[in-house]
Amino acid sequence: MENTSASTKFTGDGTVEQPAASGAPANPDASLKQRKLLTPAQETEVKELREISHQTRRVTVPGLEEILYEPIPVLDHGFVRVIDYMGDDAAIVQAARVSYGKGTKHLRGDTGLINYLLRHRHTTPFEMCEIKYHIKLPVFVARQWIRHRTANVNEYSARYSILDNEFYIPAPEHLAAQSAVNRQGRGETLEGAAAERVLELLKSDAAQSYAHYEEMLNERSDGTVLDEGRAGLARELARMNLSLNIYTQWYWKCDLHNLMHFLSLRADPHAQYEIRAYADAMLDTMRRWVPASYEAFENYVMTGVHLSGGGIEVVRRLLAGEAVTQEQSGLSKREWLELMATLGRTDQDGGP
Amino acid sequence: MENTSASTKFTGDGTVEQPAASGAPANPDASLKQRKLLTPAQETEVKELREISHQTRRVTVPGLEEILYEPIPVLDHGFVRVIDYMGDDAAIVQAARVSYGKGTKHLRGDTGLINYLLRHRHTTPFEMCEIKYHIKLPVFVARQWIRHRTANVNEYSARYSILDNEFYIPAPEHLAAQSAVNRQGRGETLEGAAAERVLELLKSDAAQSYAHYEEMLNERSDGTVLDEGRAGLARELARMNLSLNIYTQWYWKCDLHNLMHFLSLRADPHAQYEIRAYADAMLDTMRRWVPASYEAFENYVMTGVHLSGGGIEVVRRLLAGEAVTQEQSGLSKREWLELMATLGRTDQDGGP
Amino acid sequence: MENTSASTKFTGDGTVEQPAASGAPANPDASLKQRKLLTPAQETEVKELREISHQTRRVTVPGLEEILYEPIPVLDHGFVRVIDYMGDDAAIVQAARVSYGKGTKHLRGDTGLINYLLRHRHTTPFEMCEIKYHIKLPVFVARQWIRHRTANVNEYSARYSILDNEFYIPAPEHLAAQSAVNRQGRGETLEGAAAERVLELLKSDAAQSYAHYEEMLNERSDGTVLDEGRAGLARELARMNLSLNIYTQWYWKCDLHNLMHFLSLRADPHAQYEIRAYADAMLDTMRRWVPASYEAFENYVMTGVHLSGGGIEVVRRLLAGEAVTQEQSGLSKREWLELMATLGRTDQDGGP
Amino acid sequence: MENTSASTKFTGDGTVEQPAASGAPANPDASLKQRKLLTPAQETEVKELREISHQTRRVTVPGLEEILYEPIPVLDHGFVRVIDYMGDDAAIVQAARVSYGKGTKHLRGDTGLINYLLRHRHTTPFEMCEIKYHIKLPVFVARQWIRHRTANVNEYSARYSILDNEFYIPAPEHLAAQSAVNRQGRGETLEGAAAERVLELLKSDAAQSYAHYEEMLNERSDGTVLDEGRAGLARELARMNLSLNIYTQWYWKCDLHNLMHFLSLRADPHAQYEIRAYADAMLDTMRRWVPASYEAFENYVMTGVHLSGGGIEVVRRLLAGEAVTQEQSGLSKREWLELMATLGRTDQDGGP
Repeated sequence: MENTSASTKFTGDGTVEQPAASGAPANPDASLKQRKLLTPAQETEVKELREISHQTRRVTVPGLEEILYEPIPVLDHGFVRVIDYMGDDAAIVQAARVSYGKGTKHLRGDTGLINYLLRHRHTTPFEMCEIKYHIKLPVFVARQWIRHRTANVNEYSARYSILDNEFYIPAPEHLAAQSAVNRQGRGETLEGAAAERVLELLKSDAAQSYAHYEEMLNERSDGTVLDEGRAGLARELARMNLSLNIYTQWYWKCDLHNLMHFLSLRADPHAQYEIRAYADAMLDTMRRWVPASYEAFENYVMTGVHLSGGGIEVVRRLLAGEAVTQEQSGLSKREWLELMATLGRTDQDGGP
Repeated sequence: MENTSASTKFTGDGTVEQPAASGAPANPDASLKQRKLLTPAQETEVKELREISHQTRRVTVPGLEEILYEPIPVLDHGFVRVIDYMGDDAAIVQAARVSYGKGTKHLRGDTGLINYLLRHRHTTPFEMCEIKYHIKLPVFVARQWIRHRTANVNEYSARYSILDNEFYIPAPEHLAAQSAVNRQGRGETLEGAAAERVLELLKSDAAQSYAHYEEMLNERSDGTVLDEGRAGLARELARMNLSLNIYTQWYWKCDLHNLMHFLSLRADPHAQYEIRAYADAMLDTMRRWVPASYEAFENYVMTGVHLSGGGIEVVRRLLAGEAVTQEQSGLSKREWLELMATLGRTDQDGGP
Repeated sequence: MENTSASTKFTGDGTVEQPAASGAPANPDASLKQRKLLTPAQETEVKELREISHQTRRVTVPGLEEILYEPIPVLDHGFVRVIDYMGDDAAIVQAARVSYGKGTKHLRGDTGLINYLLRHRHTTPFEMCEIKYHIKLPVFVARQWIRHRTANVNEYSARYSILDNEFYIPAPEHLAAQSAVNRQGRGETLEGAAAERVLELLKSDAAQSYAHYEEMLNERSDGTVLDEGRAGLARELARMNLSLNIYTQWYWKCDLHNLMHFLSLRADPHAQYEIRAYADAMLDTMRRWVPASYEAFENYVMTGVHLSGGGIEVVRRLLAGEAVTQEQSGLSKREWLELMATLGRTDQDGGP
Repeated sequence: MENTSASTKFTGDGTVEQPAASGAPANPDASLKQRKLLTPAQETEVKELREISHQTRRVTVPGLEEILYEPIPVLDHGFVRVIDYMGDDAAIVQAARVSYGKGTKHLRGDTGLINYLLRHRHTTPFEMCEIKYHIKLPVFVARQWIRHRTANVNEYSARYSILDNEFYIPAPEHLAAQSAVNRQGRGETLEGAAAERVLELLKSDAAQSYAHYEEMLNERSDGTVLDEGRAGLARELARMNLSLNIYTQWYWKCDLHNLMHFLSLRADPHAQYEIRAYADAMLDTMRRWVPASYEAFENYVMTGVHLSGGGIEVVRRLLAGEAVTQEQSGLSKREWLELMATLGRTDQDGGP
């Protein structure tokens, strides 16, 4: 799983340092991130938050405290910031032991129990941990994200406020062509003049729609009035002229069970790259927060596979030394191909 | 409460007839609606659905069956269609009587019990009714709507499909200026050159962003390829160039309790006009579906008021003949003004 | 999967006929079910509901209409009744096609699409179908059931009403001993004197707690007052003397996605027998309602298996002809045994 | 609102001291609480948790830290313990300001904004705070409680473990008779022989059902086997013999918005006394945690009133000096009486 934030170094002043984009495309976003994520005023606010230290009786996770409030860069202007959290790996076990009651305390370590819980779909103990993020993201990503209903959300309101002039423009290496074989996927990357034309259109349309947004509002995002002699269109109306790649931001809070569900869908290779970039950054925060749960999640969910009744039957026959073809399998052609890929069989004929 | 669909006549062929916009602005949207809501193919599909008749043992509501599958026009290109429903007023009573058990059957009529349930916040029986809509709406309205999490949603995917070239352009009488006194409200309506300029910008930017969307896709929504010699950008990427007033559509399903919650917030005068237009159309479908619940909802929720502990204390003192001023009330100035408005007192000084 | 209601014949008068318990214990509950599920008054109510027939434009499922309102017997006094439903297999496809939009209509049949949706966890279209049950069940079963939160519930209230004198007493063949090896499972069945003693205790304690319940209430469930000269304890208090095997009832409504989630957990061999008996009866109603979804659900979920990343790696190595032992597998002993059982390998050493 | 825990003193060793029940029945539960809530082993665990102190960058609430992990006594054997929390009053404002964006920071203090948010039903910022409790409560209370679905729950499982021999026996002053006029309320308190008889029945039935529970299990809760020569009934079955006043326990986690919803229903005079006792204890924890929200909640929700459209119309007419009778009001007799009570009018004829 690629993780866009793995090598990010937090400098402590609200900016980030990343290795310069060397020849190798190891981190294709790197060149984009040599940038300020926050305004100086925002930097100061983050710094002040980070300098405060309280005493608490609550469970505390040093590895997550280390990055608390820091923006983790995602895409060209977005970020993920951990604002608060509740619980740790031990809190899962603590809650589960209420379920299990007397007698289980000495039998297993926390890790063993966490593995067991996840493998057997005992999901409620994972709901006893909670995390709160501040996220900056393009509107079309926010529209996918919000489909996850079991979370708490407060979004910056363009009904009351003026949005900033920040739009997502893909890095050239992410300008994927429409897949010819699969309606749902990306194909090759556009190159040369085709790529340049797309970037030009995205940039100029974003700039123009934003300029017209300000003209309709008769006001800039800094509060400057353009023409004192006339009224501006209501903010709740003017915003409709903005394009879906404009950045918005929200507070998003979720329990660990639902976070894992979100990540299992959005850090998946089938998810659109842009939301996956956020999910990857959040996977890293999860690893810092609840390392035992993270490892179990990687093993059982992220790298695990689900086989249908028909699929597992094919596996059993193959293991018994039988040659099985798609025709004999009872699987559809599509499911057969998916199964062979899962089993790592290049011959695709299921021969033993 | 204005109801944009009240005078709509369903012609049975998928179109609607509305009174021509006479001089009076009684129905300001009327001129916009002398239009086809559906393509001929869609009209045929709706017609075919409406011609089928099944036998069922389930409770059935003739008043809602009458408009089943018909598009109710909202805004310039949008609609609300009732696709299916479960239950009626009696089903609420039926479910509540499981709660109440033996002995209550003869005491009250359905209407009395429904009033009682709503007044005393016994909300679970209303969850036993369910309704499913097909809705076509601008994306910025969809973004407000989706915040209601207790509903089921299937949205048309611009990741897989190409959106149609339909954008919401407000009617001139809805081009409200930003309120000068209230960040959250609309002020006067823009007129003359200012209004014309706004409409011109909205129309030209929508047209241009859509043209560039097709150019990036290298394909039109009807499947025509623009230039056989080149690849198109992935649909999931190209869509980001579209503006927030483009129309999307979804299936949206909800129980009656949560529908009422949605309507109480979105058919409210504080809601943005554009989503209120949808809520008003849905209020009309609710009236057809569960008339007793609708009446109770109108009385207790839509026209009801909530007074704080401090507010009801002021009312008691006023009723006791005491003169009360804001200073003596313990209320903030803002809450005082809201209370006086609620009580219909023009003097605003609370004198008896 | 055993299905306790598969061979039930509905006689149409509110009672059921089942094959007499012949020598073979094929249907161990059968002898218990040669009984009246409903009082004569209730029978009349059901009959009247079943005799009504309405015209509707809604999608209708004859196979489910056939059993609408009929009680399906479960355990010794419980039942499952389908009260209403919304949608069918085609309604899932209809909703999904809003998601897929233009162009997919001709590519796949409904069944193919439903299989695809379920296999790829596109769950929202299944939420577009809804079903409503009336269920009579012991309180300890209700306490497990209610943990499923994404459903609507109206329970008969013992705060307002007097519960009937009906307690669940297990059939002798379900009097399982505590498993010695597995805290979570049942062991052998108790027999002889041990079984008799348990049944005697359950019956006499239920009878006594109910008698004392009536004494404290100073009232019977039919409204008869025991002693006109004294007041009875409040119902909301007296109920606390009843034991957890008393029957309660509720209306329970759920969408198809969440119904399948419920069934996947509660029709599972790890679920307690008593709730599984309900899940089995509901599986049968699901098969009548949405047969294509039922078949996909059987294949992908009920008979499907989930393998961890470590588990699928072992499968790949075995298929490549490698001998793998638990020690080499990286799996815990427990997970290894579970995997070998899944793969149907009796040797349990993973030899090729 | 009575608050059973207001005068409780935490001694720091897991026990509580409360003023001895003096003559006045000011705190009728006091005599019951001169007791150990925890076993010595549990006391040690709590003490150890309380002695740990961590550094954290998270927002911290000293007033809540003070009682963290301490059991607050409720009823005769129950308690409420705060285990963890996330956020404070300022965190609500922080989240809301993402919604409001630029420019609102200097306009209002936190308290003013919190009042405004609550008054105008902007509930999402309150969802940004979270609290986790460990609660010990009778099963019949747990059954009411669990109806609140928007919470996370881990209950002690009687499927796997043996429940302790603790049953709720009401204090004599809470032995209410069934109300003669209101099916939903309690009437006078039972006294003398009637009360004694009820207490005797509750105690003896609880003792007997528990003794038989152990006999069926062939095991005590401390793990002692009764008769080595025979097998015990499965735990998941034996529990069905226990009565509804046995104590269970769970971890329960909830956001502040949903906590307030729970409290508004369960700290209400219409709620059953036993669950209200828990709600009252939790109100006290809320006051410590988020004092500004607590005050707004008291004013707008707990002491606020909702008037129907018909009701507020009556108020307006009365304030205008009009004499209004029930007949002229358009209200039902029942709603009229409720309104007059709300307005504090003893004459009940609405005269001005």
